Amino acid sequence: MSIRIGILGYGNLGRGVECAIRQNDDMELVAVFSRRNPETVSILTETAAVCSVNDIADWKDKIDVLILCGGSATDLPVQTPEYVKMFNVIDSFDTHARIPEHFANVDAAAKETGHVGIISVGWDPGMFSLNRLYANCILPEGSDYTFWGKGVSQGHSDALRRIEGVKNAKQYTIPVDSALEAVRSGSNPELTTREKHTRECFVVLEEGADAARIENEIKTMPNYFSDYDTTVHFISEEELLANHSGIPHGGFVIRTGSTGWNKENKHVIEYSLKLDSNPEFTSSVLIAYARAAYRLSTEGQTGCKTVFDIAPAYLSPKSGDELRAKML
Amino acid sequence: MSIRIGILGYGNLGRGVECAIRQNDDMELVAVFSRRNPETVSILTETAAVCSVNDIADWKDKIDVLILCGGSATDLPVQTPEYVKMFNVIDSFDTHARIPEHFANVDAAAKETGHVGIISVGWDPGMFSLNRLYANCILPEGSDYTFWGKGVSQGHSDALRRIEGVKNAKQYTIPVDSALEAVRSGSNPELTTREKHTRECFVVLEEGADAARIENEIKTMPNYFSDYDTTVHFISEEELLANHSGIPHGGFVIRTGSTGWNKENKHVIEYSLKLDSNPEFTSSVLIAYARAAYRLSTEGQTGCKTVFDIAPAYLSPKSGDELRAKML
Repeated sequence: MSIRIGILGYGNLGRGVECAIRQNDDMELVAVFSRRNPETVSILTETAAVCSVNDIADWKDKIDVLILCGGSATDLPVQTPEYVKMFNVIDSFDTHARIPEHFANVDAAAKETGHVGIISVGWDPGMFSLNRLYANCILPEGSDYTFWGKGVSQGHSDALRRIEGVKNAKQYTIPVDSALEAVRSGSNPELTTREKHTRECFVVLEEGADAARIENEIKTMPNYFSDYDTTVHFISEEELLANHSGIPHGGFVIRTGSTGWNKENKHVIEYSLKLDSNPEFTSSVLIAYARAAYRLSTEGQTGCKTVFDIAPAYLSPKSGDELRAKML
Repeated sequence: MSIRIGILGYGNLGRGVECAIRQNDDMELVAVFSRRNPETVSILTETAAVCSVNDIADWKDKIDVLILCGGSATDLPVQTPEYVKMFNVIDSFDTHARIPEHFANVDAAAKETGHVGIISVGWDPGMFSLNRLYANCILPEGSDYTFWGKGVSQGHSDALRRIEGVKNAKQYTIPVDSALEAVRSGSNPELTTREKHTRECFVVLEEGADAARIENEIKTMPNYFSDYDTTVHFISEEELLANHSGIPHGGFVIRTGSTGWNKENKHVIEYSLKLDSNPEFTSSVLIAYARAAYRLSTEGQTGCKTVFDIAPAYLSPKSGDELRAKML
């Protein structure tokens, strides 16, 4: 019998989850829930239903794990504690500073109703967090470095598009190679924001817009660009669509540290991702943890969990015997 | 109260464990057990006892986790099932093909006596296995690649030293850069043994030995060298000691795979290690899992476990709240 999956929210992430389910034989998409009129939502999976989120309670016993594909700013803080009362749920909540509060809300609701909720699943938070944790446990004396990119930052692209006179825009975050090399050398550099990443902007202007004023507005924008070396390219809408419509991302988590009676030996642990599609990769991580949520729930566990709380074997469709024989 | 650790076997690995304990505030080395006469074994930790392995049963209630630092060929297959009857234990058993049998033996003995035994802990098997597992669960459609090095292979160095006329020797396994690059490009290359690694040998000859005969014997040695491009350097014993007395190692675990409704997006997940000291890094992993063994045992769990079965949070001295606030 397949694990029956529901998706709430059918944007880039929801579509990514739908695709990922097709790559996992033990899973089945049964329904997609949307705030939009279901008749206007067209999905790829022929066997799945498209429903209004208002009818979601009818699916209480027909879904093993509900995957919440909303945004972290306003959707998930409300949705995850709400829907974990009816379903086992997974989300990709990524506002790092608000994780403790989100965890507490989801944990209380999940325990009260006997469900499992796994939060902050994806690659950062998610796989990057796991690698920070493992590396810190192995090398207690050392330094952590995280670099992002090369990839599209949705938040920075949005910030560009809010500038008057900008018709469309895309922003790439790019790690600085020499900083990466310095970290890998084990020299424990202290790096400023500017030394770690550069930002590259591709901007389409409204007709008659003042390019010089816009470039200056970008480069001096606090929080988003002023602390970085930023390059701005003005291009046509056609070029933007042709060359910058993908959503690639990735990055590097590096820990360097030393061991030995006199700390005489250095070590470098590095984890990196190079992703053609940020939402599809995040979705693929969500699906692996959906399997874990289902199993934990089957075992009678309840409450909120993160990637830190879940033994890796729970993510795999293979048995313990198979994993030990082939993957250990 | 500290976690009380015992070490069985005081070679490179045992000394590495001793050093790692000093880097973890919640741990304490209480005793080192050796097959040698304890009076001939000199350790670094002033507060720990040095004992004969014959007296180990006296320590049954004075040690929380015993770390087995013997070899995989003959020591661990006997020691781990034997000592898990008295202690929670950790080993670094690394004969991949015999892991299922070792697991079964340790599991039976551990369950019978109410202990936890964690086997095959280190970096391969260990951290590399974990990365293979996570990456396979996230990208079910893809290819796995493992490269080792640059590093010293103890087995190959031993093989060199067994050749008549060889006084001393060290062998380095080196991953081929172009093969690594081909894998990272996502082109899914099928690589032969020869294409993945080269082998570099530093050999000290006995006086009067025939260098040409020895070089030929090395390069044609089945299993060890004949499938590789092998370079042989004859050097003096002084040079060997001066430049080749370290035990560095490392390697790369890479999985490439695709996602999307039509598998149109590629992803590369890469984990790599660059280690000045292979045994000290392995020891550091052992110590993190010793913490997990202690906690699992405190919770009442019993039986044999591997890195696949242990939630990452068990490795850390930090609380769940701290981990979520700072590392997620």
